[in-house]
Amino acid sequence: MSRGSAKDRLARTALSFLADPADPVLGALLECASPAEIVAAVSAPGDVRLTLPAIGESTRSLARAVARWRARLDQVPSTGQLTAWHQDGVRLICPGESEWPTQLDDLGPARPIVLWLRGQADLRYACLRSVSMVGSRAASAYGAHVATELAAAVSERGWTVISGGAYGIDAAAHRGALATDGLTIAVLASGLRYGYPRGHHDLFQAIAAQGVLVSECPPDRAPTRPGFLIRNRIIAALSRGTVVVEAALRSGALNSAKHARELRRAVMAVPGPVTSEQSAGCHELIREWGALCVTGAADVVEHISPIGSGLSGPRLGAAVPRDHLDPVTTAVLEAVPVRGGRGPASIAVLAGVDLDTVLRCLGLLAAAGFVQRCDQGWRARKEA
Amino acid sequence: MSRGSAKDRLARTALSFLADPADPVLGALLECASPAEIVAAVSAPGDVRLTLPAIGESTRSLARAVARWRARLDQVPSTGQLTAWHQDGVRLICPGESEWPTQLDDLGPARPIVLWLRGQADLRYACLRSVSMVGSRAASAYGAHVATELAAAVSERGWTVISGGAYGIDAAAHRGALATDGLTIAVLASGLRYGYPRGHHDLFQAIAAQGVLVSECPPDRAPTRPGFLIRNRIIAALSRGTVVVEAALRSGALNSAKHARELRRAVMAVPGPVTSEQSAGCHELIREWGALCVTGAADVVEHISPIGSGLSGPRLGAAVPRDHLDPVTTAVLEAVPVRGGRGPASIAVLAGVDLDTVLRCLGLLAAAGFVQRCDQGWRARKEA
Repeated sequence: MSRGSAKDRLARTALSFLADPADPVLGALLECASPAEIVAAVSAPGDVRLTLPAIGESTRSLARAVARWRARLDQVPSTGQLTAWHQDGVRLICPGESEWPTQLDDLGPARPIVLWLRGQADLRYACLRSVSMVGSRAASAYGAHVATELAAAVSERGWTVISGGAYGIDAAAHRGALATDGLTIAVLASGLRYGYPRGHHDLFQAIAAQGVLVSECPPDRAPTRPGFLIRNRIIAALSRGTVVVEAALRSGALNSAKHARELRRAVMAVPGPVTSEQSAGCHELIREWGALCVTGAADVVEHISPIGSGLSGPRLGAAVPRDHLDPVTTAVLEAVPVRGGRGPASIAVLAGVDLDTVLRCLGLLAAAGFVQRCDQGWRARKEA
Repeated sequence: MSRGSAKDRLARTALSFLADPADPVLGALLECASPAEIVAAVSAPGDVRLTLPAIGESTRSLARAVARWRARLDQVPSTGQLTAWHQDGVRLICPGESEWPTQLDDLGPARPIVLWLRGQADLRYACLRSVSMVGSRAASAYGAHVATELAAAVSERGWTVISGGAYGIDAAAHRGALATDGLTIAVLASGLRYGYPRGHHDLFQAIAAQGVLVSECPPDRAPTRPGFLIRNRIIAALSRGTVVVEAALRSGALNSAKHARELRRAVMAVPGPVTSEQSAGCHELIREWGALCVTGAADVVEHISPIGSGLSGPRLGAAVPRDHLDPVTTAVLEAVPVRGGRGPASIAVLAGVDLDTVLRCLGLLAAAGFVQRCDQGWRARKEA
């Protein structure tokens, strides 16, 4: 499944404990050295300059970075610890692996070293047709209402809703998608076991049960103040476009929009009363940045769909061709009935695979538009 | 003062009773014949085709138009009637006269034949720095509030507010300007003595006392259904830009915006809650037409001011150079004190002109930014 070696996978894991997210020195180093080479150089005593190829970074900033990383060498977990986290439901993916969303490559040297995931959905498939919705934590009743309705409506059209798991607009967007049994992805600025904000423990449980939680930080790490802004690049990169639902003039949500623009993703904003400071950031996006003024799911879906496909109501077809599925997923799909419905356990028996695999496959098949939940379990979509 | 002859002035007056506003046949005829020639041809019996130069219109549509006009020949008023209206405060202006706003020439063949005016302000000066504000008659509390505030704020920055005198957004815009002692212009779809809607009798009185009422229809004429849309071209043409404050998807206010766009004037729209159908037209203007999303007077003034001049708060200078004023107006301006204030009667004595002339001159001096009202009467602006 992986293009990287098992050695590089462990090395990336170690690096994710040593370096801060989006560390520019590490990003530059990875352009010309393998993760294993970098970890070896950092772990070995002595002058690191002699063992690493020349990079654009100055020798001095490289030395400082390596000193920072060396100070954290004792934080690198044991294989036993990784296994324990995996048993707790936290899995790890690296670039090149099957669940890694390739659109993260657009981040260049700022691409995450690894991603930690928790949840039923397959991240790569879930992101194929996704839109990010962000906004103020101090949302107004209007903003929360609009975020919930908009997320529910794009979700009903088969789109995954990505947000940051924060209070306010983020939570309303996740809940709107959950309410329609849609897929939703929360990209946290803390580790997944830390789960910030703590008050969203139940929300995160619900997202994991139906979608996926994502973080580039080690599982138990607390969030840092700059970490929220750094995390925003992932929210912007994963989706085809970012909708700012409600944001004051200096809201962090505008930072997500900035990332989306830099990544040449669609930037959209929902207008609100000009008498509300909570909408002033959205109006600025529309007026000064040329963000599209969106008032409903139809506007959003039309703007981010391939030309012509999003114009006539809900999109029904599958996002990937059926014959591109791997054999196990195909077997699971063939075990899902076209009429009525079937539970995951029965599907597992029919397909001849274990229950965990069935749940994972059903998640990606749903994200790709092949199957849908129903009262009796799962059913194949006729159009797919 | 007039480039047209007294004969053409009377002929234009007659034509304004014979033809409907923006009659395309009359517009085409006026490109190649004088008003007096057209009236003579219409008034004379016999075949009109022989007495008028060839025009782009077909012979048949010309014949039909002339038949319509001939049927109304008995509606043309006597000179005594015109004098009576003038004594009632309704004055008439024609293209080329000193109070005629030259920007109406942008309307081409749809330029009004004449304009009937009532009010203290000089129309041409009042329009020099003006913005149109339009919107739904069935305005929400939000829309009416925003219209009042926006009109008051642009008015305080020395801009004239133009609207249509209707219920809802129009009335709120006029009232906002009146509340700050600013200039406001109502372009009615009925005659000025008819004064539609009748419920705005007091509002129209207040506008006449401080600004000016405008109509291209004969004074006693009732409005017609298509007349409202035809009137909108004048609202759009008089100002530098049109702001749609609140409008549903099929609102007539969008028609004003369309005229403004065709005339290459600025088109602006105020966003509102996406949950309000009353703002859906504004959002469509922003999304589909590229209207500027404006949230306050600063946005509006910056957008319609000459580059650089509207950027730093209220504009204080005069709109025309002082030495471009005519001798009588200059005399009145010199009689206005720089400190304290002086009433119109005292100014009349000092300037050596009658009170009516003083009031008229003060109106245009205020519109052009030379003088302002104060508790003691009028005072010269120091910056002008």
